[in-house]
Amino acid sequence: MGNMEGLFDARRVAIIGTSRDRGKAGGMIFENLKRYDLELFPVNPKFEKIRDRRCYPSLKDIESDVDLAVICLPAQMVPGALEECVKKRVKHAVVIAGGFSEIGNKGLEEKLKEIIKGSETRLLGPNTLGIYIPEVIDTTFLSVERCKRPGKGSIALITQSGATATVLMDSCSLYNIGFSAFIGIGNRADINENELSDYFSNDKETKAIALYLESFADAKEFLKIVDRMDKPIIVLKAGRSKEGSRAALSHTGSLAESSDKVVEGVFKQHGIVKALDEVELIDYAKALAYSEPLYGDRIAILTSAGGPGIIATDYLQEYGLCLAKLKEETKKRLKEIALPSASIENPVDLTASLTNEDWKSALNILLKAEEADAILALTFFQPLGVDGTLIETLKGKAQKPIVSVSIGSEYTFNVLKKYEELKLPAYPSIERGLKALYILAERGKFLRKKLNSPNE
Amino acid sequence: MGNMEGLFDARRVAIIGTSRDRGKAGGMIFENLKRYDLELFPVNPKFEKIRDRRCYPSLKDIESDVDLAVICLPAQMVPGALEECVKKRVKHAVVIAGGFSEIGNKGLEEKLKEIIKGSETRLLGPNTLGIYIPEVIDTTFLSVERCKRPGKGSIALITQSGATATVLMDSCSLYNIGFSAFIGIGNRADINENELSDYFSNDKETKAIALYLESFADAKEFLKIVDRMDKPIIVLKAGRSKEGSRAALSHTGSLAESSDKVVEGVFKQHGIVKALDEVELIDYAKALAYSEPLYGDRIAILTSAGGPGIIATDYLQEYGLCLAKLKEETKKRLKEIALPSASIENPVDLTASLTNEDWKSALNILLKAEEADAILALTFFQPLGVDGTLIETLKGKAQKPIVSVSIGSEYTFNVLKKYEELKLPAYPSIERGLKALYILAERGKFLRKKLNSPNE
Repeated sequence: MGNMEGLFDARRVAIIGTSRDRGKAGGMIFENLKRYDLELFPVNPKFEKIRDRRCYPSLKDIESDVDLAVICLPAQMVPGALEECVKKRVKHAVVIAGGFSEIGNKGLEEKLKEIIKGSETRLLGPNTLGIYIPEVIDTTFLSVERCKRPGKGSIALITQSGATATVLMDSCSLYNIGFSAFIGIGNRADINENELSDYFSNDKETKAIALYLESFADAKEFLKIVDRMDKPIIVLKAGRSKEGSRAALSHTGSLAESSDKVVEGVFKQHGIVKALDEVELIDYAKALAYSEPLYGDRIAILTSAGGPGIIATDYLQEYGLCLAKLKEETKKRLKEIALPSASIENPVDLTASLTNEDWKSALNILLKAEEADAILALTFFQPLGVDGTLIETLKGKAQKPIVSVSIGSEYTFNVLKKYEELKLPAYPSIERGLKALYILAERGKFLRKKLNSPNE
Repeated sequence: MGNMEGLFDARRVAIIGTSRDRGKAGGMIFENLKRYDLELFPVNPKFEKIRDRRCYPSLKDIESDVDLAVICLPAQMVPGALEECVKKRVKHAVVIAGGFSEIGNKGLEEKLKEIIKGSETRLLGPNTLGIYIPEVIDTTFLSVERCKRPGKGSIALITQSGATATVLMDSCSLYNIGFSAFIGIGNRADINENELSDYFSNDKETKAIALYLESFADAKEFLKIVDRMDKPIIVLKAGRSKEGSRAALSHTGSLAESSDKVVEGVFKQHGIVKALDEVELIDYAKALAYSEPLYGDRIAILTSAGGPGIIATDYLQEYGLCLAKLKEETKKRLKEIALPSASIENPVDLTASLTNEDWKSALNILLKAEEADAILALTFFQPLGVDGTLIETLKGKAQKPIVSVSIGSEYTFNVLKKYEELKLPAYPSIERGLKALYILAERGKFLRKKLNSPNE
C-alpha cells in the first residue's frame, strides 16, 4: 500500500488518452495540467506531438518514472491502461471515466481492483474528477472559463460527487474561499474518504475537513479515524430522506443504508458536524477552520442597523444561543464612546452615523466584557463613516469568537473577499452568521465533553 | 386626507434644509434627487445658490406649487418647517430626522400630528429614509457609491427600519432584483403600512408587496386590507422572540405585543406569507411576483448534477412537497432524448455532458407530464455544453411553476441577473429554491381555500 503523500506530491504526470480536442476529457485535462509546474507526459498512440510537446505512444515508452497517471480513456479501455501503470510502478492512477459500478457494471470495477491488488499502484476513482490542489495540480476536466478554481486555503474538501464538487469549487471561488485540497473519490474502488480524512487530519495546511458523501465506504473505520483526529470534520450526507436515498442509489450506486436519525445521533456522539446542503457544508467548514470554538452561549450583537439586530436576536434561541446581558460597567464604557442616538443595550446599535473609530472602540469594549462569550458583528458598509479597512482590526482578536455578517452589493462583496483572505468567518446573511455561531458552540460543547471523559 | 398617488407622482420637490455638504442628509438628498427628472427647490436661508441652482430662503418664497417637501432639518426644527408646508398646501412632507417617539420624545411627534391635522398635507415619517421609486424619485440620504439602487421591478417594499431597507436595496441591486417602489414608513406619525399596502394592491406595476415591520400600526385594519387584495403580501415581522421584541422597543419604539404563535396563526388564516429574515423576504416576494401559485405538491427535478439533485430531494418532505412519480410514457420520452448515462427517474439527471438541446427537450417533456405539478430546474453552467441563452426558453412557460437554482461564480452570477430581467424565479442555493416552491404551494392552497369559501 503506497502512501497518500505521493498523490499530492506528484511531479511527473502522465495523461493517458490525451486529446487535441479541448471538448474531450483528455484534451481539457492536459490543458488544465499545463498551468502547473509539473513534468507532463501526454500519452496517445495516434499522435507524435500534442501542442508542441512530445506525445508518447504508451506509458512504457516514457523514459523517466511516473508519479501519477491520469487515465482519460473510456471505461472499457481502463483495465489495459491500469495494467500498464502497475507494470511501470506508477504510484497513483486517477480514473476519470464513469461506466463502472455506478451504472451496475460491477464486474468491470472488480477488474480494476484485481489489477492493482498487491501492486505499488493506488487508484483514485473510477468516475471521478480527480484532484485539485491550488497552485500545485489540477486533474479535472472542467474549463476554467466556466468553473473557476478557488485559491489556497485551509479547508480540505472530499466529495463522492463530481458535480457537487464542481459547483462548490466554482461558487467558493466567487468569494475567495480557499482550499488546501479537493479530492473527488468517485466510486472509490481503492482510495476512500477514510484514508483521505486520516491524511488531512495530519496535514498542517488543513484546518477543517469537509465531506460530501452519499454513503460511507466503511462507517466503523470512519468513526475510528474521526475519534483519533483533533480537527473538525463536517459531513454532508446526501440521501438522508427515503426518496433521496433512492436517488443516491441511481447516482453513485450508494446504498444509503442508515436512517437519518441514526446518522444524526452517531454524528453528535463523535463530534461530526452535520451539514444539510452545499451552503452549510462550506459555511460550517469556514467557521471551524477560521475560528476557535465557542465556549458558552451568550452573544453580544454589534450592529449599525437596528432591524438586522432584531432579526438576529429573533434567531438566537432557535440556535441554542442567547443575548449576553451586558454589565453596567460595559454599558458605561459603551456610553462614553457611542453617539447619543446609539443603543448601548445588547444588540449594541451604533446607528448608521457611526465611524470606523466608533466601531473599533465598541468592538474592543465587547471583547473585554466577560459577560459575552462571542460577538456577532453585523458590519454594514452602506454608511459612509465606515470602510473596508475596518475588518483588519478583527485579525488576531483571539479573546473570543467573532462572526461577521455583511450584506450589500459590489463594495460589500469585495469586503467579503477580504474577510476570506484574512481567514475571518463572515457571511452574507444574518441567519448564516448565526448558524456559524451555533456550530462553533456545538464544537465547544463537544470538546469540553471530550476533555472531561478522555477515555470514552 | 390627500391621496397616495401624489406621493409617487410628485414632480415639484422642495428640499428644506439643503446643504452644500454631501456628508449631511440635506446635501446628499439634494444630490440624489438631481439624478431624476424633477423640478427641485432647494431651501436654506444661508445660501443664495447651491450648485448653480437658486436656493430659496423659505418654502413660501417658492413661486410655484410644491408637491413634495423633503424636510432635512434636525428634529427640533421640524415643526416649524411642517407648519410652512401646511400653509403652502404641500401635498406630502417627508421627515428624515430621528429624535421623536423612537427615543421616547412622544410630545414632539404629537406636535407633528397636530400640525397636519385637518390640512391638505400628508406626512411620511419622521425617522425615515423616505421613498425611492426607480427612475422616478429618490429621497434617501444614501450615497450611490456605497448603496446601489435596484432597478424597476414588480416588488413594492415597505419598511419600518431604514437600515433594513438600505441593506435590502443594496443587496438586491447586486442580483438586478427590481422594485416598483420602496417606502420607509419610519415612525409613521401619519402614513402607515395599511394605506400603502392598500395603494400597492391597486398599483399595476406591483405584483407582490413585501413588508418589514416591528409592530403593526393597526393590525385589524391591516387584515381587512389584506383580505380585500388579490396580490400576495409577505411580512417580515421582527421582534418575534421575547428578546427580539425588547430590542424592537429600543429601536423604533415598537411594542411587539403579540406572541409569534398568534401572529403565525393569523398570517396563515389570511394568506399572509411569513418571512423570518431579509433573505426570505425578498426570495418569497420574487417567487410570488414572478410565478403562478403551485397547485399540488409533486415536483419534477431536472438536473445536470446528481449530488445537488439528491440534496434537493432530501429537502422535499421538510417543505411539504414530494417527488413526482414519473409515468412510463414520460420516462420513455426522456429516454429518447437523454444520453445513455442519464437518469430518467426523478430527479432527471442529464449529467454534465448535457447540451442546451437536451435540457430544453427534457424541460418540455416535464412541462407536459401531468404527473408533475412544478419543476425544480437545477441548471448549472459549469458544463460547456450549456450556456446562459438556455434560460430564455423558460419565459412564458406558464403551464406550471418552474423554479431555477444556479450556483457558481461570475458566469452563473450573470445568468442569475438575467433570470431577474426575465422575471423568472431563480436562486443561488438549493434550499432557497425549495423554499420558493414551498411558498408557491402555500399560496396555491390558500387561494383554493379562498375560492371554496368566498364568504369567509
